[in-house]
Amino acid sequence: MTDALLQVVQGGVETIDLGRQLRVGMPQSPNHPQFWHTLPRRHGDMVRSDGSSAANDLITTGTHVGTHIDALAHVSFEGKLHGGADATESCLGGKYVEHGVHTIEPMLRRGVLLDVAGHLGVEHCEGGYEITVADLEATAERQGVTVQRGDVVLIRSGWGARFAEGAPYVGGPSGVPGVGEAGAVWLGEHGVHAAGADTIAFERLAPGGGHALLPAHRVLLVERGIYIVEALDLEGLAAAGWGEFTFVLVPMPIFGATGSPVRPLAVRSTATSTGAAS
Amino acid sequence: MTDALLQVVQGGVETIDLGRQLRVGMPQSPNHPQFWHTLPRRHGDMVRSDGSSAANDLITTGTHVGTHIDALAHVSFEGKLHGGADATESCLGGKYVEHGVHTIEPMLRRGVLLDVAGHLGVEHCEGGYEITVADLEATAERQGVTVQRGDVVLIRSGWGARFAEGAPYVGGPSGVPGVGEAGAVWLGEHGVHAAGADTIAFERLAPGGGHALLPAHRVLLVERGIYIVEALDLEGLAAAGWGEFTFVLVPMPIFGATGSPVRPLAVRSTATSTGAAS
Amino acid sequence: MTDALLQVVQGGVETIDLGRQLRVGMPQSPNHPQFWHTLPRRHGDMVRSDGSSAANDLITTGTHVGTHIDALAHVSFEGKLHGGADATESCLGGKYVEHGVHTIEPMLRRGVLLDVAGHLGVEHCEGGYEITVADLEATAERQGVTVQRGDVVLIRSGWGARFAEGAPYVGGPSGVPGVGEAGAVWLGEHGVHAAGADTIAFERLAPGGGHALLPAHRVLLVERGIYIVEALDLEGLAAAGWGEFTFVLVPMPIFGATGSPVRPLAVRSTATSTGAAS
Amino acid sequence: MTDALLQVVQGGVETIDLGRQLRVGMPQSPNHPQFWHTLPRRHGDMVRSDGSSAANDLITTGTHVGTHIDALAHVSFEGKLHGGADATESCLGGKYVEHGVHTIEPMLRRGVLLDVAGHLGVEHCEGGYEITVADLEATAERQGVTVQRGDVVLIRSGWGARFAEGAPYVGGPSGVPGVGEAGAVWLGEHGVHAAGADTIAFERLAPGGGHALLPAHRVLLVERGIYIVEALDLEGLAAAGWGEFTFVLVPMPIFGATGSPVRPLAVRSTATSTGAAS
Repeated sequence: MTDALLQVVQGGVETIDLGRQLRVGMPQSPNHPQFWHTLPRRHGDMVRSDGSSAANDLITTGTHVGTHIDALAHVSFEGKLHGGADATESCLGGKYVEHGVHTIEPMLRRGVLLDVAGHLGVEHCEGGYEITVADLEATAERQGVTVQRGDVVLIRSGWGARFAEGAPYVGGPSGVPGVGEAGAVWLGEHGVHAAGADTIAFERLAPGGGHALLPAHRVLLVERGIYIVEALDLEGLAAAGWGEFTFVLVPMPIFGATGSPVRPLAVRSTATSTGAAS
Repeated sequence: MTDALLQVVQGGVETIDLGRQLRVGMPQSPNHPQFWHTLPRRHGDMVRSDGSSAANDLITTGTHVGTHIDALAHVSFEGKLHGGADATESCLGGKYVEHGVHTIEPMLRRGVLLDVAGHLGVEHCEGGYEITVADLEATAERQGVTVQRGDVVLIRSGWGARFAEGAPYVGGPSGVPGVGEAGAVWLGEHGVHAAGADTIAFERLAPGGGHALLPAHRVLLVERGIYIVEALDLEGLAAAGWGEFTFVLVPMPIFGATGSPVRPLAVRSTATSTGAAS
Repeated sequence: MTDALLQVVQGGVETIDLGRQLRVGMPQSPNHPQFWHTLPRRHGDMVRSDGSSAANDLITTGTHVGTHIDALAHVSFEGKLHGGADATESCLGGKYVEHGVHTIEPMLRRGVLLDVAGHLGVEHCEGGYEITVADLEATAERQGVTVQRGDVVLIRSGWGARFAEGAPYVGGPSGVPGVGEAGAVWLGEHGVHAAGADTIAFERLAPGGGHALLPAHRVLLVERGIYIVEALDLEGLAAAGWGEFTFVLVPMPIFGATGSPVRPLAVRSTATSTGAAS
Repeated sequence: MTDALLQVVQGGVETIDLGRQLRVGMPQSPNHPQFWHTLPRRHGDMVRSDGSSAANDLITTGTHVGTHIDALAHVSFEGKLHGGADATESCLGGKYVEHGVHTIEPMLRRGVLLDVAGHLGVEHCEGGYEITVADLEATAERQGVTVQRGDVVLIRSGWGARFAEGAPYVGGPSGVPGVGEAGAVWLGEHGVHAAGADTIAFERLAPGGGHALLPAHRVLLVERGIYIVEALDLEGLAAAGWGEFTFVLVPMPIFGATGSPVRPLAVRSTATSTGAAS
């Protein structure tokens, strides 16, 4: 007898890719080492006796680049990580052993899109706009979805459509829209497993303010133990009108690291997927 | 109405992780840049005015490290990539645009384990042992699984249990067990989508022979367009006796690269999973 | 009997450092991988049984960062490197074997400073200003120095004082001052061994023009085989009024690379150095 | 009037290169990130409108690779760096500000070769052989050189000729010859400025012992503040019979790093250089 999951998968699934391609020169936070990829060996550089050749790669990069997930070890508050661990002593031999990204279990969970820009009827929220609890609740209501314990909630400000513009996506003078401390508390009260957004730092960045103060990071990562996913591509999801889906995210198991580039997926069975908001 | 996939996922799934942790010093092919991870910023290095601090990472690595997937751009034969593309001209601006790893679609497919070591009743096949077509067929028959078009087939030689030993895993004087050209042709004839193994180069390496000749790579990547997954951890899968499962693999979308570290998963519904071989 | 050189050195020498510190975040050309330095191991991470510990580093960087030298392999024109070598075929196995930076002999030579900003009586030449042959000749005359065959000529625009400002140093909208094609031809006619400047690209960059067209690079590197040194710190040299000195430059012998960060020195015997322009 | 130093330099100097080429795959200590160099852009990848193109590099590497210098920040003993600085607190924001490699002044000093292998009449000292104080003194006497305060002393075991062999150079089972604690104390008592050797760790490594205990590092770096230069190529110097020379070493000014690859030079005036031991 075929496994129930495999049966549905073999019945056909449709996938929407929520991850950005990793490309040299893409916008990223200036706080992290730049993503670089190069080919040390190209075809023809060294041909084997049997006529074959192999090309290969060298990558050098921060982990908080492209679409990525923050491990709990990424942020501390008053010297403590989530659960009260001492932030200095948690680093053993140059690795965050306890709350590193290798401790994040792969996710196959209910995902929910809150398309705030869609609800507000704007192409994208303005730079520096704080998405309020009222915005989140009105969006959920309009979409007819509820946020449940264990969900992964993805918040669309529409700012992600600016990724291709480069520097403006990162914010700087304009700031970046997103939830603030209040929105993070709301997510925490709903017991979500992870929260994501289509912006570089998940939360609202004040115009000109850079990444100096990140209260939502403190609330989610330190106080609540909720993972954050950043720089998602939510345009396809919004266009398809998927409000609820299976969310798949598999972090790279980098021992002791504070984050990982990821390529999350939204998946639905083609047997039942209607293309309308659930 | 809930999507059929989400319904099964919310009913409960069990996941077996097939990916190796990415750790500094792990065994890897000497042909590729070594995996390194370090923390440029640790907690306490720079505390913000609000009492928070952020730690971050720098990674430098080849892409064919840890558990990883080979893109079709990885290997050429007589100057051609899969489909006859000119191997030199396929590199545009230092990127393999056509057959790069960014072109590999995420996989949610039927996965099949062929536990050759289990069938042969050995802890692991010897270094340099060529797994024959007869071995593959006898293993499948004994397990009661059939290989179908579009499957991902994972071949367990048992050699993967030596990963923790370091250098011996890579082979060198001992060689490494695996399929040869004949096994690759057999996989191709079954129309598999991807093939994987618990060894560093997927295919048999002759004792002392290094990675000089890789005929199975030629057959799979160049002639058939079948992806190869290497350095899988198949011990848990064999111990659980899963012969058939949903295989999930999401390559990092590195534009123009020849491969990507991956963390593949075997997943089953807990509603029906019995722990016995399917 | 003591060697004549050693005798002078032991009599006392004074050194002016012409190289920039390599620091994370320093201004650099956006065309090259960013300079990063981090400590994988800090003291205390792993203490040996005898009470000692060792800290170490990981660097990831382009070679055209900080103060650096361009090898002849850096630039081609119409498919040719200096001396007519085919630019594509000169790359063997991913290395520029013939004109790579490893072929640059260490320099202990006569160095000459042409302090154009000092001559013009400006703090720095304006962004986009082209330093003319007349400027170079008038500066040399005013300083009482002549440019001789085999010299290393350092051209000070004063722009180097802006290094600490970061982005403005790189130019962008403002452009950057420097010689153009005519100045490069003049240097070539004087048979100099290498030429340097206190700017990021040695030559004039038009306002808003970026690094799109670099005629002086073509003249010097391709046509004449003259090395170029960029991002020099010439402020101390100008302040000391040294017009003539022993120039010491030792490139890193990176096999097959197109450039190298360097730390050039101007050196004088303290027995004779007067602090006045020579 | 020409500066005395420049006068000698223009009279002609002969240089012996003491630095190893930096090549992918060269032997290096397994404790440090591997040296890698690759070309992200090759000629032809992107040709500008004027017919020119530029190739460039990406380097990723430890600093204790190739011929390199150890900064005082490299080693601590019982929690202290040289001068008693607290080893943990000396790391500010991820940089060794006080004793980092950027604090090493460029060297133009008297250099002395102690050709121990030459004195002992062996091709190279055996792996694990401890070069004694008696060896050092007999070598100096036989060569007719004295070690003076402020000198840079280079100790040749002959092991450097094995660099091209790869792994055997690093030692492992065989160990590596070099001075031990007693030799380091002797160097300290002579007040040398820096000490170098033609081996990977400067000091004797016991057969099979790896780099676990490094007493000479403690004596020189921590107790005496004497820099260590490793993996020198001393073959040319010994062949030329230079016992005394001007030693030129310019570390890369990497802010806060524990070491730097270097390319030291031995230089003599051709006017007086006789090719015989001084």
